[in-house]
This record gives sequence, structure tokens and C-alpha cells, in this order.
Amino acid sequence: MPGDASFPSPADAGREMYELIRELFPICRSITGDGLRQTLEIISRRIPLAVREVPSGTPVFDWVIPREWNIRDAYVRKARGEKIIDFQQSNLQVLNYSVPINRTMPLAELKEHLFSLPDRPDWIPYRTAYYRENWGFCLPHTQLQALEEGNYEVRIDSTLADGSLTYGEYLLPGEREEEVLISCHTCHPSLANDNLSGVSLAVKLAESLGRGPRRFSYRFLFIPGTIGAITWLCLNEPEVVKIKNGLVLTGVGDSGKIIYKKSRRGDAAIDRAAVQALRDSGDPFEVRDFHPYGYDERQYCSPGFNLPVGRFSRTPYGEYPEYHTSADNLDFVKTDALAESFSQVLSLLRILEANRFYRNRCPKGEPQLGKRGLYAAPGIDELALLWVLNLSDGGYDLLAIAERSGLEFGRVARAAAQLKESGLLEEVPDRGAH
Amino acid sequence: MPGDASFPSPADAGREMYELIRELFPICRSITGDGLRQTLEIISRRIPLAVREVPSGTPVFDWVIPREWNIRDAYVRKARGEKIIDFQQSNLQVLNYSVPINRTMPLAELKEHLFSLPDRPDWIPYRTAYYRENWGFCLPHTQLQALEEGNYEVRIDSTLADGSLTYGEYLLPGEREEEVLISCHTCHPSLANDNLSGVSLAVKLAESLGRGPRRFSYRFLFIPGTIGAITWLCLNEPEVVKIKNGLVLTGVGDSGKIIYKKSRRGDAAIDRAAVQALRDSGDPFEVRDFHPYGYDERQYCSPGFNLPVGRFSRTPYGEYPEYHTSADNLDFVKTDALAESFSQVLSLLRILEANRFYRNRCPKGEPQLGKRGLYAAPGIDELALLWVLNLSDGGYDLLAIAERSGLEFGRVARAAAQLKESGLLEEVPDRGAH
Amino acid sequence: MPGDASFPSPADAGREMYELIRELFPICRSITGDGLRQTLEIISRRIPLAVREVPSGTPVFDWVIPREWNIRDAYVRKARGEKIIDFQQSNLQVLNYSVPINRTMPLAELKEHLFSLPDRPDWIPYRTAYYRENWGFCLPHTQLQALEEGNYEVRIDSTLADGSLTYGEYLLPGEREEEVLISCHTCHPSLANDNLSGVSLAVKLAESLGRGPRRFSYRFLFIPGTIGAITWLCLNEPEVVKIKNGLVLTGVGDSGKIIYKKSRRGDAAIDRAAVQALRDSGDPFEVRDFHPYGYDERQYCSPGFNLPVGRFSRTPYGEYPEYHTSADNLDFVKTDALAESFSQVLSLLRILEANRFYRNRCPKGEPQLGKRGLYAAPGIDELALLWVLNLSDGGYDLLAIAERSGLEFGRVARAAAQLKESGLLEEVPDRGAH
Repeated sequence: MPGDASFPSPADAGREMYELIRELFPICRSITGDGLRQTLEIISRRIPLAVREVPSGTPVFDWVIPREWNIRDAYVRKARGEKIIDFQQSNLQVLNYSVPINRTMPLAELKEHLFSLPDRPDWIPYRTAYYRENWGFCLPHTQLQALEEGNYEVRIDSTLADGSLTYGEYLLPGEREEEVLISCHTCHPSLANDNLSGVSLAVKLAESLGRGPRRFSYRFLFIPGTIGAITWLCLNEPEVVKIKNGLVLTGVGDSGKIIYKKSRRGDAAIDRAAVQALRDSGDPFEVRDFHPYGYDERQYCSPGFNLPVGRFSRTPYGEYPEYHTSADNLDFVKTDALAESFSQVLSLLRILEANRFYRNRCPKGEPQLGKRGLYAAPGIDELALLWVLNLSDGGYDLLAIAERSGLEFGRVARAAAQLKESGLLEEVPDRGAH
Repeated sequence: MPGDASFPSPADAGREMYELIRELFPICRSITGDGLRQTLEIISRRIPLAVREVPSGTPVFDWVIPREWNIRDAYVRKARGEKIIDFQQSNLQVLNYSVPINRTMPLAELKEHLFSLPDRPDWIPYRTAYYRENWGFCLPHTQLQALEEGNYEVRIDSTLADGSLTYGEYLLPGEREEEVLISCHTCHPSLANDNLSGVSLAVKLAESLGRGPRRFSYRFLFIPGTIGAITWLCLNEPEVVKIKNGLVLTGVGDSGKIIYKKSRRGDAAIDRAAVQALRDSGDPFEVRDFHPYGYDERQYCSPGFNLPVGRFSRTPYGEYPEYHTSADNLDFVKTDALAESFSQVLSLLRILEANRFYRNRCPKGEPQLGKRGLYAAPGIDELALLWVLNLSDGGYDLLAIAERSGLEFGRVARAAAQLKESGLLEEVPDRGAH
Repeated sequence: MPGDASFPSPADAGREMYELIRELFPICRSITGDGLRQTLEIISRRIPLAVREVPSGTPVFDWVIPREWNIRDAYVRKARGEKIIDFQQSNLQVLNYSVPINRTMPLAELKEHLFSLPDRPDWIPYRTAYYRENWGFCLPHTQLQALEEGNYEVRIDSTLADGSLTYGEYLLPGEREEEVLISCHTCHPSLANDNLSGVSLAVKLAESLGRGPRRFSYRFLFIPGTIGAITWLCLNEPEVVKIKNGLVLTGVGDSGKIIYKKSRRGDAAIDRAAVQALRDSGDPFEVRDFHPYGYDERQYCSPGFNLPVGRFSRTPYGEYPEYHTSADNLDFVKTDALAESFSQVLSLLRILEANRFYRNRCPKGEPQLGKRGLYAAPGIDELALLWVLNLSDGGYDLLAIAERSGLEFGRVARAAAQLKESGLLEEVPDRGAH
């Protein structure tokens, strides 16, 4: 079970997560290419990541691995003047996956390839050209409006060529082969919350969970969004059945409350554990029903898999103005928020790990607690003991006991431990249900 | 499917319905007799109605077809003075199904056979003497109070004799033998909303649905209330199993909001389609649970049949003061209300017709929509496409997808059509469930 | 069915219950001993109670029958002064089940054995030393604070020795072997609401139900709390299966509203009947879900039995300040409250007794009620008749018809009786479900 003593404090974890975000921030990532490889290499210094390369052109279900994209430089400058748009200043300034270009053109032509945010005139938007060839630049709207007529030198020094799609995978084995999947998209360039925050949380969880015994095995995926999840599912289809619970981690560093999005099933153990952990925390949170939009839960919850994978985030994409702009920067993510996200996911996983079916071995009438030191003594939570005894008929696991009783999971789990120790409870097989 | 281009506009339909109400209004109808025949004859000019005659004395389940009632004239006059109650002025003035009488009597005796509405002193009530022999007159309360002592000449020139019960039936065949039943009571005399409005809506639906292809067959019944439904069920018992959905149409011309009353089952396709159509309309509406009171849904939903038949009306009987009075006249029904009722029932039937089970042929991960022109293009509703793909696992029909997603049925149906066209969806048998 | 004419009026029942409470109040009861025997002897004058003696040391499930406790006197006095704590004044003054003591000791030592209520300084608390040997006294906090330093003569003239546990049982046979269990704890000393009120209600129900025919058999248990219920369950395990419904009666004499606590099953017939009876009464009430705390429902609803036994009370234990203090006295219980409790439990039992599954013998369409005198006649409740006819398909019992229709149970039951009399309904076996 995710232990306690050997674990970092949430505050330490938050600081370390922030440091990793800072380290990864400058890299220009995309769904393929060297930025992704460099990112995985940095993560590999912390956890022993297996890095996979899948060649361009490989069919993966309905998709094909695209050509690999790499970029060295990109800029726009007034004929022989200074650079007015410069990839070296911010990798957001180039339309991600732009094909190469090296030409002089009038403003009118250039403008068809410029993207800005009229409502946020000082921010640079993040845009991509995945799966449809294009080139372009992103810039602040104020700058766009100030562009004078005339010819501009436009250069994107990129390549789009056969290569491979790169992703990282780390399996932390537990007592059981049954797996908890932790997945995060690792394809966005210099955006801090979306999704270096999710990446850093996955890394910190992997480090922490590795320090103690685990009932479940944990599989961590650092993958490009959509195509990465589809690729992993396709290449690992026989393994998918082992996934008994899972989380997509994204946007866990902003100041908003935590929002858990249920799996398509809606009542999977991960969903129930998340609701319980968040409720027990006493902090504000929100739970949303599944909808087929968002991050890689779309793929894990596609009808051909229907995996019990929920999504853990703070403010979801599109609900904060900084989303997919240059304002999602190192100031936007907060150490405190990262720390709380770490703490809440651990609480949730602790519930999964501790959840069991027990059987009351003394089910006819109440057992006499007093003769076992379980009545009116320090550390004795009589109400929790009685609930566990009453509902341990093989049909309720500890989570279900917490749900019906309204007690915190921790009270239920501690009572179950005391009762098991006293011989009043015995574990029963959990039917492999979670 | 109930088409669009070949259909009348709701406004045209409303006007045509009003014209039919106006034409039928003067006729003195009852549960048997020539008024009913004349009414069916007028309807036959619009749709090829089969008119059935069931002889008096025929046993129908727990009932027996009553003797046939016909009336030529009826009046009351002060001894040799002018007529003060006159059937020729309003057929509501005679107690419907009155036995003949031709006698002079003092006011006191006459008064035992007079019916008025003290709370609505200017209106004539509508009363009947079905299944218990009686005679009587209905009149405004002000007139009743003004009657002077003395003798009155009382005459009802009616006959109650062996004959038959008459009803009309029209079957519009579709691709399937499975039927949608549309039933309306056609037995009330000069009352416009109850139920010439329902009759006119049934006629207009029959005309309109006849113009295009249909998946289901539609059976229209123009029948006297209660005894007519029981008669039809009894004489057609082997056919009843074909009825997979149905509506009783009544009171669809007043200005109140639409009120749908669920079938006894409560979750039949007709119930779900009605709720969805009304919700999608954006107009005010109300849905009520089944109760064993009201119109012929009582018979269709009796436990021996338990048919999936709901009731579509505006303000229900007894909830508007004009109900069963002379104030339910040609001014009380509104062309606009008739038009909206027509439109809403069509929307509901369109949902039934369009509802299908589909299977996502590319269920592992999301299919690549972009390569099929289904992504970020004009006319593409990505959210609807994703919902349909995600839930098309054979367990959700389109209606269930609309219910779970909260999307309008039309968005879901259009997305399904696009996906089917692209080869991503295939229809699966719907288990004959609706 | 619990009749009406032969039954006491609630007001008479309330007065008789109060008289029994007054008679039993002075006796010093405990979970064993002569006070319990004397109490059962008084009850035996009203109903033919079988009194059982179970020897100390008998194992009962996880428990053992304790040694028997008896007490003759107890007091504390300042060295050779007057008695300042005196069992003869109130049997609450001695810690129930105190071991004997006869010694002089300084105030400091004595104080470790004194119990008071600082928040209610004039009341004496009720405390016990069951299952852990101790001695002590209970007294008003004002008196405790006034105690002066010095030596005190402390005497408890009690015995704790092999003997037996005593309980009373009364089986009132009905047409069926299936039983309704009525259980009350009879172990508390001079406390009126907790639980002489419950005892007096059980006695009055036994007297009343004995006067007429009954469908079910009724088993009344007058037992010490916890150990008594466990003992009865253990000694009668093969009989337990007969218990199809049951109530624990406690705290039914205070002025609070009635609170019904559901059985662990939550949807047993007793639970549904209680909710229906309380709703029909029009009086304030509350229904609570099961929780494994409280009175002997804890034992009956333990997972090894999971009996359909609810709890009927007014204000629950711990929710009124007088609970377990000398203020729970003869002034605290009210004749009116006792009367209403009697009346409500009888209403609930009448529903259980009257509840049946019927089948509509004329299920196709509605039957013609008029020809049977069941239409528009005095005493005819057409809506109730139609609901009963519509839902009597073998799947709804009368209680379910009342629940779905929203009608009072009495209206449903009367309509069913009329329909049965007319031959339209026939009873069908109820599957032994309640």
C-alpha cells in the first residue's frame, strides 16, 4: 500500500514537481520528434523509463503513425530588418508541426498564416497543424495589428520526414498483475499547466509508489496526446485486460479546485475511490460525468475498451483563459496546487489499495467487543467497528461500507484492521472486480 | 420517415385543422348513431377510412354494445308559448342519449331533469345518460332561474333502438408491420376542443404521414370513448400485439401548454420520445405519470393489454372551466395551438421513426475523423459525432444517446447519419423493442 | 386483521399504558435479577407470559450469560451521620451491577466512584457496570460539589452470583405461522420513557391483538437489552426464519414526533408499511435509514440474521437531555404520546395484515363498474377502484398500489374489498414475501 513514512511530504513533492516543470518548460515538444525524446530523457533520470520508438507509417487501429517533425529555427522579419517573430524567443510562436518554408511574401499573404487572440491581445496562442499540412506563426494580437504593409522574409527551418513516434513507459510491479494506469500527455511545448503539471505529478507518483510495497502494479505512460494513447492501446492490446483502474493526469497545477471526471462506466472502483477521497478531504471539489471529449480518457474509454479510467485535473481545458496560450507559463502553476494534487491522488490510490471484501466471522448478533478490548477504550471507534461488522457479509467492500455509512474511508479501514487483528474479520476474495 | 418537404407547414396544418373542426362542429354526435356516421363520412373525404358497424347487443369483454341513439328534435316550451329550450339552437341542450318524451308537466317535475352550472350561469353544460336510461335538458343557469311556475310542454323526439356502434379505422402501412396507434374519441357533440381538436389532428397526421415512406405502420382509430376502445380491442385482439407505440389525442387546441401523460409502462419508447421531443422544442411542457383516469389510454393501458400508449393533450379535462360546456366552442380553439400540437406530435413521431441501434465499426480508440472530412469542417458537429461513436456499442439507441449526452435528438440523428455514410457506423437489429 | 370495535380507543390505551408505567416505575431492574422477575410477574397479570430462565455461564453465540445481580440496599454517609446518597430514595443512585462494598474511605477515593452530570446539576445520571466489575454511585452534581473532605461510610449490599438471566415471551398465534416480532428491552430501572413506555406499548398491543382474528402470529419479547436479544436468537435459531416482520419498541412516551428507523434491508414490508402508515396519518414523523447503533435492532439486523425488523420510537436515545437521567420520570412520559404511539403501531400492523396480492379477473379494458353498482354511487371511490383494477396484475400488492397511486392505504384496501366482493378481484398467493 502506498506507504506514509517513506513518502515525501506533499509540500516537498510540490516543490520537486515545480522544479521538474521548470526544467522541462523550455523544450519545444510535439507529438513526435527530438523535443519529446529530450523530455523523456530528463524523466529517465528520475524513474527508469522504457522509451519506445514506433516507426512512421505504422498502422495503429484507424490511424497511421505520422512523419516525425523537428524544428531548428523559425522567424519572420521585415525585409532584412530585425526578426519580429522569433521561435528562439518562444516556441509557441511557430504553428506546431509547420512544414518548412523559406520565402519572402507580402503582408497580405503572410497574414493568412498568422494566429492571434483578439480578446487577449498580449498573449501568444498555441496552435498545431497535426494531420493536415500547413505552416504558420502565432503572435500577440497587438503585434499583429502593428504589422506594416510590405514584404516579409518568412523562414521555418523544420523537417517533416519518416522517423518515429516516441513515448515512455514505466511499469512498477506490485503483488498482483492487476494494473493501475497513470497516463499523461507529454506533447505540448512551453505550456506549464497543460501538461507539464500532469507529467511532473506522474513522475512524483512513480518515485513515491516505488518506495513501498504495492498490492497493484502501476503502469505509467508518458505519451503524445491521442495518437500516443491509440498507439499504446494498439501495440499492447493483450495487456489491456490487466488495467483494472486508471487515471489521466492533466492540468493539476492551477489554482482552481480539483475536478474529477468519471470513467465511461461511471461506477468503477476508481470513480468511487475518487469521490470518497475527495469527500473525505474536506476540500472543495467537483465530480463530472463522463463525456467523450477531453484528453486521453477518450481513447481509454472508447467502446471497444471501456476501461475504468477517470480523469484527474484542476480547472479543465477551455475553462481558464490562459489555456493554450503563452500565459500558461511558470507563473501560472503553483507549488501549493501541485502539492495538493499529489496528496489527493495518493489518497485516492490508498483507498484503492486498502479496499477489500471482508466477512464477519461472528455474524449472528454482535460479537462482544469488550472482551477483545474493542469497547470504550482509547483508539476505539465504536461506530466504525459496528458498521464494518454489520456490513461485512461478503457483499460490501470497505469502500461500499464507507459509502453507506457516510464515514470517512480511513475510519472504516482502521476499524477493519482492528477487527481483522482480533480475529473477527477475515478477508474474502474480491472477485477480481477492481 | 415522416418527411419534411412534402409535409404541410405547421401553420397550414393548423388552419386546415381549424377548418375541419368548423365543419364538424354543428353535428350532434354520440357514442352511436347517425351523427357519428356523418362525422366519419366527412373524415372519409380526406382519408380512406374503413367504417365499421358493430350490432347492438354484441358482447365486448365485460360490456355489451348498447342500443343506438338518434335524435331529430327536442324542446321545452311554456304551454303553447315559444320554445325556451331548443335542441335546434344547440345540441348540448338535450341530455345526450335521452330517451323520448312528449308530455306536459309542471315546473317542479321538469326541474328534476334540468342541468345547469350555477358557477358559470351563462354556459350550457354537456351531460350524458349513457348506460342508464334517463331524459333531460341542459341550459344556462340564468335561464333556469328565470323559469316561471306553470306547465311546460316537453318533447324529445329521439329513438333508442337496436342498431349498431360505428367507428372509423385507417391503416397506413409502413416498411414494418409494427404499428403506431393514433386514437381519438369522436363521440362528443358540439364541443370543439374535446374532441374535434384531437380528431382534426389525427386526420392531418394521417394525411401528412401518407405522403412519404414510413418505417412503422400507423393505425388511426376514430371511435366513441370507452366503449369504442373496448370494442376495437375485443374485435382485434390478435392484432394488438403489433402495437409498439401509441398516442391518444385529445384537447389539442386550447392555449395551455402541452401535457404528455406517460403510458402505464412509463419508459416505453413513446414515452421517451415524447419527453425528448418536448424538451428539444424549447417550449413549455409538462410530463405526467400514468394514472388510470382520463381518456382511452385507460383501456389501452389496462393490465390485460398494458400497451405502450401515452396521451398527448394540452390542458387536460377538468382543468379548464370551459371543459364540457358550451364555452368549448369555435372561439376556444386556436389555430396556433393546433399548429403547435401538430408540429410536436410530428417531432415525436420523427424520433420514433429515426431511432435505431448502431454499432461503431471502429470501436478501439477514436477513429480518425479528419481523414473522412468529419473534423473541423462546415456542418460537422464534433461533440455529437463523438457521443454517437462512444455510445454505439449496441446497448444504446439514438434516443438513449440523446438522453445520456443531453444533446438534442436531431444533433444525434444527424451525426449518426454522417457516421453511417462514412462507414463508421452500422445498424444493428433493435430487438423489436419499439 | 387487528380489528376495530373490540379494540381500546387510543385514549383508553394511553391511560392504561401510563398506569402500567407507574406500577413498574419503582422497581430496580437490571439485565438479570429479581427486579426483572418482578416486572415480568406484573406483566403476566395482563398477558400470559412464558418466563424463561437461562443459567449463568450458558454460552450464547459470542457471549456468556453473566452472573445474576441483586441488590437490597446501598448508601453513602458521612462517618455515622445521615445518609447523603441513598438507594432507597432512587435506585438510579447506585451504579447498576455494582459489586458489593462495605468500607469507610476518604472523599478522594470515593470520588473515583461517583458519577454526576455537570451540565444538568440537579439530575442523577443512570450508569451501569455490565461486563466489567466495578462499584459506584450516581448523584446530582450540586450534591457532589458540596461533599466535604473527610471519611465516608460506603455500603452496597448487592450480590453478583451464579443464577440466571430472565426474560418473558408471549406468542399470539394467527392463521399463519409467519410471525411479527415485537421486542422491547425491560432491563432499565426507574426510567419511564426508556423503556417502560416501550414495555407498556408491547403489553397493550398484545392485549389488543389477542381480541380478534389475526393473519400473522405475533411474538412478544420482554428482554434485557443486547444480551437478551442475543440469548433469544441463540436459543431459538431454528424459529427465526418464521419472523417475516418485526419492531423494536422504545421511547414511545415523550412529546417528540414519531421516528421510524428502517431495517437493514430498508425495503422490507415492515419498512414500507411504516412509511405508508405514518404518511397516511398526516402527523409529523421522520424516517431514518438503518445504522448499526441503538437498541436490539442491532442484533436482529446483524448480518447473520438480517431480519426485517425496524425500530419504532419517538425521540431517539441521546437526542433528549432527559435520556438516561432521573428526569426521565413519570412526568416526562405523556398519556397523549403513548396513545398516539399505540394508534400508529396499530395502523402499521393493520396495513401488514391487510396487504395482499390480487389479480384483476377482468383485465382487458376496464370492467363495466356501473352494472355492479360501483360507479357514481354513495361510498364509491372511483379513483381508488380504477387504481386497484389497473395495477392488480399480480405484481403489485395493495401497499405497492398505495405507493404508486399516492392514495391512502385505507382507500386502496376498501376499494379492493369492494372489487373482491363484486367478483372482479381474486387473491393470489403472496409468494411468502412478507
